[in-house]
Amino acid sequence: MSEFELIAKLLPTLPSNQQVIQGAGDDCALLDVGIPGRHLLFKTDAVVEGFHFTRETPPEKIGRKALARVLSDIAAMAGTPGSAVVTIGLPPGFDAERVEKIYEGIGDLAREHEVAIVGGETTSSPERVFISIALIGTVEKGKAICRGGAKAGDAIFISGELGGSLQGRHLDFEPRLREARWLADRFEIHAMIDVSDGLAGDLRHLLNASEVGAELLSSAIPISRAAKLHARAESSAKPPLLAALTDGEDFELLFTLPRQQAVPLRDAWTKEFPDVKLSCIGRILAEPGLHLRSKDGIRPLTAHGYTHFAKS
Amino acid sequence: MSEFELIAKLLPTLPSNQQVIQGAGDDCALLDVGIPGRHLLFKTDAVVEGFHFTRETPPEKIGRKALARVLSDIAAMAGTPGSAVVTIGLPPGFDAERVEKIYEGIGDLAREHEVAIVGGETTSSPERVFISIALIGTVEKGKAICRGGAKAGDAIFISGELGGSLQGRHLDFEPRLREARWLADRFEIHAMIDVSDGLAGDLRHLLNASEVGAELLSSAIPISRAAKLHARAESSAKPPLLAALTDGEDFELLFTLPRQQAVPLRDAWTKEFPDVKLSCIGRILAEPGLHLRSKDGIRPLTAHGYTHFAKS
Repeated sequence: MSEFELIAKLLPTLPSNQQVIQGAGDDCALLDVGIPGRHLLFKTDAVVEGFHFTRETPPEKIGRKALARVLSDIAAMAGTPGSAVVTIGLPPGFDAERVEKIYEGIGDLAREHEVAIVGGETTSSPERVFISIALIGTVEKGKAICRGGAKAGDAIFISGELGGSLQGRHLDFEPRLREARWLADRFEIHAMIDVSDGLAGDLRHLLNASEVGAELLSSAIPISRAAKLHARAESSAKPPLLAALTDGEDFELLFTLPRQQAVPLRDAWTKEFPDVKLSCIGRILAEPGLHLRSKDGIRPLTAHGYTHFAKS
Repeated sequence: MSEFELIAKLLPTLPSNQQVIQGAGDDCALLDVGIPGRHLLFKTDAVVEGFHFTRETPPEKIGRKALARVLSDIAAMAGTPGSAVVTIGLPPGFDAERVEKIYEGIGDLAREHEVAIVGGETTSSPERVFISIALIGTVEKGKAICRGGAKAGDAIFISGELGGSLQGRHLDFEPRLREARWLADRFEIHAMIDVSDGLAGDLRHLLNASEVGAELLSSAIPISRAAKLHARAESSAKPPLLAALTDGEDFELLFTLPRQQAVPLRDAWTKEFPDVKLSCIGRILAEPGLHLRSKDGIRPLTAHGYTHFAKS
């Protein structure tokens, strides 16, 4: 059983209560805790040494990344972050200065987004450092953007560029909080998700939640310079397009909106965020399934994106 | 630098914002997120294989304990829990059925306290399983009981019995949510903390936060049957009183209130909670320091409780 299958099996068994508007399964949980006009967003995530960073990663960057990931989930719901609590798992005799620097990285990014750090625990983790951060935020009632609202005919957009994040950007990425709120305020965004597991995988989550399909245009996928350089430098590296579709850790916003709004969106975005690329990469179809259209024709894209491409 | 010294050094550097009534350093953070009449409580905690449970611990009990620990923190503030999010770190190829059973243990306890589980992540942790749970709750404005309110002359009370928790109770303990809310509703509780690191250590936290001292009465400390049996069975085990003072993982409520309320409290408690012991174990003094009075005289109790006792 894969992680996704396991979670899909577990979700319906989780206890709920009258607070819950939407529980596990989206970027954040959506709760009504009695704040007039607003819902609460709630999310947790962890980074683990050897998977999300290495022993050589500067500790400030580890802390920064741990918080940036959960901020990106709040962004994907078009929310505003509020307060976070942190647990750090540490080997015995771990350097106190390193812990301080981890907190420095967390704190610096938190200040940028006016997030309070209101809890800091440490626990034992002999073999590798881990950091778990839980974050609450809020969003105007009815304004949260979930994964399940995409409609046939929608245009599919992505912010930034994809692929090669592990070459460095995964430690420095900017959670798209401002962009997401701006989008939700001005356009009829039907569905949104942050791309953490790779475009092919996360678009699949959005399509499944929305019960629709999609066709992507191969030439429209924004491929990062890092993915191109990496492919050139290492013969064993993925081709750049495949990297952009499957690498993960991009933390860009993937969203859909009515196609009539595509051009106005592009114009307004370029004025508002001149330094952040925005690409229309395809369209939502009524028929389930995910396909990639290129000059060679249309091919199905698997959940992890690469099976067909690796063979082609 | 000890963990406590490190955290004491970090606390003042953590970013805050206008939500924060009280940040890190108490059992939970206390936040004003705009709920009329109520504050939000926020807490996270983790359990790690080899420290909080073993490879042989039944998975339902691991899940139960992970949630019970954070519930106990909400109890210590006299709050009502609401929703929780979970991250489980798992070795590769980990048995899916075991994960389901961990969630079963979390879910069963959650249902008992009407807590919703609104997020479930898994991540990689090759050497040992860990579970991190974050929980939000609420408390009526002005009704949260913090660690810092103890006053000279207060009576010090503890629920239940102490010591020997690792013989089994640490997997089965009941978070004292009902008891704590009952206390806060009916008596003038000045300060409260849940005993997770041992009575001597946690009372020290309460005293430091309140800038007072205390004297405990050795004969009044409620020693658990487990601590007594363990001391009898193993010659290397701590003497029972020392176990009660320092073992940790008791998750009982330690609190202070004006001594005039001590007798009415005891009477009302016995009626309301006939199955839960309540002991008056000492009094708060204006002078800082923590002492233990026994028939042999008065002795200082160190932060971890045992230095002097181990030698005596």
